[in-house]
Amino acid sequence: MLQLCWADEAALETNNRGLTYGDGLFETLRVEGASAPLLSYHLDRLVRDAGRLGIPVARHDIARHCDSALARYCGLYGDAVWILKLILTRGEGGRGYRPAPNMRPTLILQHAPAPQAPPAAGVYVDFSRVPLTVNPVLSGIKTLNRLEQVMAARELVDPVFEVLMSNAAGDVVEGTRTNLFVRLPEGWVTPPASSLAVSGVMRQRVIERLHSAGEALTERPLGLGELVGHSCQAICLTNSVLGVVPVRNLAGQDLPVDSMLATICSPSN
Amino acid sequence: MLQLCWADEAALETNNRGLTYGDGLFETLRVEGASAPLLSYHLDRLVRDAGRLGIPVARHDIARHCDSALARYCGLYGDAVWILKLILTRGEGGRGYRPAPNMRPTLILQHAPAPQAPPAAGVYVDFSRVPLTVNPVLSGIKTLNRLEQVMAARELVDPVFEVLMSNAAGDVVEGTRTNLFVRLPEGWVTPPASSLAVSGVMRQRVIERLHSAGEALTERPLGLGELVGHSCQAICLTNSVLGVVPVRNLAGQDLPVDSMLATICSPSN
Repeated sequence: MLQLCWADEAALETNNRGLTYGDGLFETLRVEGASAPLLSYHLDRLVRDAGRLGIPVARHDIARHCDSALARYCGLYGDAVWILKLILTRGEGGRGYRPAPNMRPTLILQHAPAPQAPPAAGVYVDFSRVPLTVNPVLSGIKTLNRLEQVMAARELVDPVFEVLMSNAAGDVVEGTRTNLFVRLPEGWVTPPASSLAVSGVMRQRVIERLHSAGEALTERPLGLGELVGHSCQAICLTNSVLGVVPVRNLAGQDLPVDSMLATICSPSN
Repeated sequence: MLQLCWADEAALETNNRGLTYGDGLFETLRVEGASAPLLSYHLDRLVRDAGRLGIPVARHDIARHCDSALARYCGLYGDAVWILKLILTRGEGGRGYRPAPNMRPTLILQHAPAPQAPPAAGVYVDFSRVPLTVNPVLSGIKTLNRLEQVMAARELVDPVFEVLMSNAAGDVVEGTRTNLFVRLPEGWVTPPASSLAVSGVMRQRVIERLHSAGEALTERPLGLGELVGHSCQAICLTNSVLGVVPVRNLAGQDLPVDSMLATICSPSN
């Protein structure tokens, strides 16, 4: 049913809708050896969100191809962490924006070395000048429409690791490649799923771990003032490849570095 | 400087940012024989908007490759109208969303038969249930991020030719592949460029022709009530391939069919 494309062997037809319209979605998996610890989270999200886009896929099909990819590439990296990237598109052709009936989705499989881990002592973060717009039909989906994130990422200049993007209401929503957790007197707060451009699998795991640990967590909009005010006790960013990344400095202002969130979300817990 | 990709000869590397992030833009040119009547409009827009995205291109380079493509493919279509599609991407690779410095942009050249012309007696149009969101950083740019339009186009069922999309403020902005002109007692009205997802070259030409003809034209937001109310005298849609398309029925309500706009915008004028 799926058309497979191994990125190290084949190229993509230029009428593939992943290129022409960004008509698809992707997952970036952290892999250790031949094991992707968050695999089931990624599969769940990919299948659910493909359904929202109307791209028909079966979870067991994607899982089987992931297993093949993990076996195929794990030998290349030895003990080093690596990345398996899945791109799922609606397929080739169609009449303009309108998809043809019964299109055959394309699954592209790519591997890459993992990026350098951010310092455990925390990272420098700033606010983006690029506003974030989220269409409710696409909220949270890691689609191939990522130009807003690209435009914001162009602002990244060392040592700034990430920029936070705000929506038209003035709420701070997420980073270009990270979700946001802020520790306030009431406990941890993270913006609600409906407001997100990308609802990360690591975000999902952190929410589950906080609940398991009996920690207070609220999903609600976060005003900019709450991040830069005196009541902000800590900020962490989450990303499925990098895990939980504490922020040590936001827009020039030092912050206490939280290690609790990373600890309770570590794979050994 | 550009990396050329002739779609009928070559495929695309799967690390091209046009695929991975929709990091690029496109133009769809109507061609008659070896001549694309709106070529200069397309070139102007492509170069201007590539500049907004930070993709460096020279107009004369794109123009030269267009000339080659027109010469290369015109023989395939005889007297029939055909389409030349240009896709310009930021190029291959980069570190995640963040582009690498000095990337080499990719120009993909594709040809296709023209779609069937809509009936001169006008088309059926409805309202989309998919809201339109426009990031001010990307407004008007025909980027490769077109999933909102794809999701809306999935609603198209014969005989509906187009659906109109509204923004969060409730203003009707544009169709999935067309811009909108509404004739009201004050004259023609079209939504302002800053509100548009795609600012079409045909829209630009219509605006110029209306001005030349001394017709009243205002660029301002259009409430839904203005399109379905008694004061709406006519609605036309514009598209660079299809030209000016009068609407004969909106959401089940018949409308007077305007032929003036198509007439003053015809190539012979």
